Amino acid sequence: MTHYDEEMTHLKDSLLGMASHAETAVARSIRALVERDEALARQVQEDDNVLDQLEVAIDDIAIHLLAKAPLATDLRMTTVAMKISQNLERVGDSAVTIARRAIDLCAEPQLKPYVDIPRMATMSLEMLRDAITAFINKDPEKARAVVPRDSDVDALNRQLHRELSSYMVERPTTITRCLHLMVISKSLERVADHATNIAEEVVYLYEAVDIRHAAQKASAAAGA
Amino acid sequence: MTHYDEEMTHLKDSLLGMASHAETAVARSIRALVERDEALARQVQEDDNVLDQLEVAIDDIAIHLLAKAPLATDLRMTTVAMKISQNLERVGDSAVTIARRAIDLCAEPQLKPYVDIPRMATMSLEMLRDAITAFINKDPEKARAVVPRDSDVDALNRQLHRELSSYMVERPTTITRCLHLMVISKSLERVADHATNIAEEVVYLYEAVDIRHAAQKASAAAGA
Repeated sequence: MTHYDEEMTHLKDSLLGMASHAETAVARSIRALVERDEALARQVQEDDNVLDQLEVAIDDIAIHLLAKAPLATDLRMTTVAMKISQNLERVGDSAVTIARRAIDLCAEPQLKPYVDIPRMATMSLEMLRDAITAFINKDPEKARAVVPRDSDVDALNRQLHRELSSYMVERPTTITRCLHLMVISKSLERVADHATNIAEEVVYLYEAVDIRHAAQKASAAAGA
Repeated sequence: MTHYDEEMTHLKDSLLGMASHAETAVARSIRALVERDEALARQVQEDDNVLDQLEVAIDDIAIHLLAKAPLATDLRMTTVAMKISQNLERVGDSAVTIARRAIDLCAEPQLKPYVDIPRMATMSLEMLRDAITAFINKDPEKARAVVPRDSDVDALNRQLHRELSSYMVERPTTITRCLHLMVISKSLERVADHATNIAEEVVYLYEAVDIRHAAQKASAAAGA
């Protein structure tokens, strides 16, 4: 193994570590919400600096690698790694947002048992895991299969948004809590967006086909 | 001027063009909201593909340049250009979100005259313009001055969020309209975030100091 290959392996390992941190952060923020565990929510907020530092570290490795990349495919691998890392850092930001709203919700009576939000979390995290696995296993087919699942999460977010809107109209005393839940739902929808971005980068990387904006248009039309 | 320099100039010109498109999109989406101009809002949605295409084009130029960057500073310039372009593309997504909500609001009676939203738009767009100017003029001081302004926009977003929440409680019939306005306010807050990201990249580029996560932490604590 050359020194260059070693550094490239280091880059991929750092990304894998970052992905696992990001995933844990989202899973914990949702557990904090469901189990009304304020301490866990605060831990998510505190741990976010690990992701921030990893993003900076990955950029440094990447810039270093770019300076001596022997082939065009190495350049592409490296720039894609930088983009994946940026997306993972933002997944962490979503987890922090969820944690913050979970803390606010801990201070108020529970609205009702959560069903759709944990389901959205599971879907988004599976997308993220599949996108990262596709990157590691050089599997553009697996990555490609992630992209259409984004619209399921979008649909669930829209449905929840509608339900919460009606609920607010019927029972104005729940408005604050409903708004917190809307932000949480939107944050999970954003995790799925980041998973989709990563998947698109992986397809681009291994097939050199740019599918980014075909899918992004559909999601922009559906989301927000 | 060498061929390499020409390509680097081409990269910067493309970024400038993209910045100007992104700025126009946000400004138009807000004008569509304020003047209740549904046709203009739809135009913002349609024009978004220009930004999508520019992002892909800039990536292509950048990958090409990376392959023959003579110096480490050229590598850094090129990767920063890719990051700026990604942020500009997302500014465009915010404009599309605003336009979509403006269209929904055109179908309902006006809630009240908009004061804070146009102000937030002006602040965010000035931050974006200054960050891009700092990039072009190689002016890290100007870029550094953009970063703290993000908390003013965050504060305005939070204030508007509080006002709209109270308004919803008092007059539940306005809930849908208030939710649209919250999304618009949040989208503008996100434009300011992207301007801040760009400014931080510019400081990093010209001073090789990574200020990204000092500022991002503050914004994460304040935002959402």
